[in-house]
Amino acid sequence: MPELRKDPVIGRWVIIATERAKRPSAYVGGHEKPKAGFCPFCRGQEVHTPPEVLAYRDPGSERNGTGWWVRVVPNKFPALQIEGQLQRRGEGMYDCMNGVGAHEVVIETPEHEMSLADIPPRQMQEVIWAFRDRVVELKKDPRFRYILIFKNHGREAGASLDHPHSQIIAMPIVPKRVQEELEGARRFWEYKERCVFCDIIAQEEKDQKRVVLENNSFIVIAPFASRFPFETWVLPKEHSLYFHEIQKNQVTELAEIMQALLGRLKTILDDPPYNFMIHTAPFERAGIPYYHWQIEVIPKLTKVAGFEWGTGFYINPTPPEDAARFLSTPLAEIQEVEIPQAMTQAH
Amino acid sequence: MPELRKDPVIGRWVIIATERAKRPSAYVGGHEKPKAGFCPFCRGQEVHTPPEVLAYRDPGSERNGTGWWVRVVPNKFPALQIEGQLQRRGEGMYDCMNGVGAHEVVIETPEHEMSLADIPPRQMQEVIWAFRDRVVELKKDPRFRYILIFKNHGREAGASLDHPHSQIIAMPIVPKRVQEELEGARRFWEYKERCVFCDIIAQEEKDQKRVVLENNSFIVIAPFASRFPFETWVLPKEHSLYFHEIQKNQVTELAEIMQALLGRLKTILDDPPYNFMIHTAPFERAGIPYYHWQIEVIPKLTKVAGFEWGTGFYINPTPPEDAARFLSTPLAEIQEVEIPQAMTQAH
Repeated sequence: MPELRKDPVIGRWVIIATERAKRPSAYVGGHEKPKAGFCPFCRGQEVHTPPEVLAYRDPGSERNGTGWWVRVVPNKFPALQIEGQLQRRGEGMYDCMNGVGAHEVVIETPEHEMSLADIPPRQMQEVIWAFRDRVVELKKDPRFRYILIFKNHGREAGASLDHPHSQIIAMPIVPKRVQEELEGARRFWEYKERCVFCDIIAQEEKDQKRVVLENNSFIVIAPFASRFPFETWVLPKEHSLYFHEIQKNQVTELAEIMQALLGRLKTILDDPPYNFMIHTAPFERAGIPYYHWQIEVIPKLTKVAGFEWGTGFYINPTPPEDAARFLSTPLAEIQEVEIPQAMTQAH
Repeated sequence: MPELRKDPVIGRWVIIATERAKRPSAYVGGHEKPKAGFCPFCRGQEVHTPPEVLAYRDPGSERNGTGWWVRVVPNKFPALQIEGQLQRRGEGMYDCMNGVGAHEVVIETPEHEMSLADIPPRQMQEVIWAFRDRVVELKKDPRFRYILIFKNHGREAGASLDHPHSQIIAMPIVPKRVQEELEGARRFWEYKERCVFCDIIAQEEKDQKRVVLENNSFIVIAPFASRFPFETWVLPKEHSLYFHEIQKNQVTELAEIMQALLGRLKTILDDPPYNFMIHTAPFERAGIPYYHWQIEVIPKLTKVAGFEWGTGFYINPTPPEDAARFLSTPLAEIQEVEIPQAMTQAH
């Protein structure tokens, strides 16, 4: 069973995946090559994944057969293991815990060659509904304190399969960065009695220097202290603690704005590797007034990696004002190539 | 002038390098290629760097000429700028500061093809002395609150030039990660009245499961909650707040153990890209009993990047116990190839 271990200085929990331990030779010789021609996430290959935990599928189609348009399955190589009890324990001065949790894959479309930027708007909405449905289901398990939804797109961003997919990890701890955000937001609230994210939205709407996109329910900004070139945050304009409490009309608008954002990244930065993560409050914080869920989108363009990991000190060569200017320019003005039209697909 | 900006939620300072703003096209098309055949850090090319701020050189040799064995020059493309005042200011709800600081390059050897693992032991000592001398000099400037010494080795670890070099950044803020370490160490001290790093050393020496290397003055361990495969920490056994207060006999032993460690990484992991950073206390904390300087060494082997940046949540596929076992095995037992002998070089 994987193990959760806590750094005794910083207090950060780390998953040590003991069961899939890699020998040094596994890291030597550059990138892992994908097996050509076969993809377990494609239509017709359903038998090659663990049995589905959720699928939106045609009436009459069979579980773990074809006929689905979004499908959620347990990760075949999970970072955390679903069975077992938490069992916190000490090891001398150190603290650890069984690596209990859920690790699921959201297959965003049966089409291998698609991407979130290109799928039909309704398909994107369905992906968001699948995220939400899984959170609602997984939060019933009292062992889980936090559920993280994220996407790695492209090898350089950590994706090991090309087929469009995102991941969900339900874990028995609250990740350090989430705790820091909560703490920072709480301090701001104590001082101002306002939500820091609501204040950010208000200032960005006033300044208009870092706004990338906007619709009725959402705003996309290049954050003032961006760590990475073309980093953006997608924020619901209405103050809201939890992603999974999203309203139906918000799902439509989130799908629209995410596709517009990912489409612009794809066109302007030539389909860069990227990550997104949904930041939401831990379940145990129900009722707090100071947090506001949001989505962080980070294209992986620079290589200044380990140094920043070690120090928390970032150097960003692209000011967010420039990033916002490039990303908010109508694509037609940037180049002649048309934006890939969202394809119409019946399902 | 570059700008230091503070994230209003997390409180993290970021350098926004406004003057070398990159357009989207700069990120498109993969890796930057180095210019072949020319290297400004090589012997005889001294005129192509800014004038040296320190050099260890042959008696009678001229400043900014040949005859040096370690040379420190200002970075030609500095992340922070040496001239100017700090000038903290607000921008609506946001906080920023002029990007004042020093950014220097330590050229570790005149030999382009060398690496820290292969230079003669005495040369490695000289590199450490250069680190120390620059800290002692830069800390006289009252604008600087922290000095970071780090190395990026290999393109994937962020190095833009192949010639062996490290970097020094003197900055007017204390990086977030350093603050977190100080805070964690302080909490441990308040509870135990002991240094957390001293306790770690004691437990690792007792357990022997995560010890990689050891000599009289230093111990190298694979930390209990390692974030990355083959991550190691190099700790002075004697409790000490500041790297720059290192004793002469410790310099000799640090050079020895760093070369042994880097040599093993090079042999076992096939010359991986890596970063190291020296973690030391901020100057303003003189006299605190709870911190202990150390060096963090991180080979860059995995790609799971943006996700971890966004969440502070790490999945490590190689248990530190395995990493320590591989790295502490005498090289002769791992393979027939001999360890590159430290070359003898007169200077």
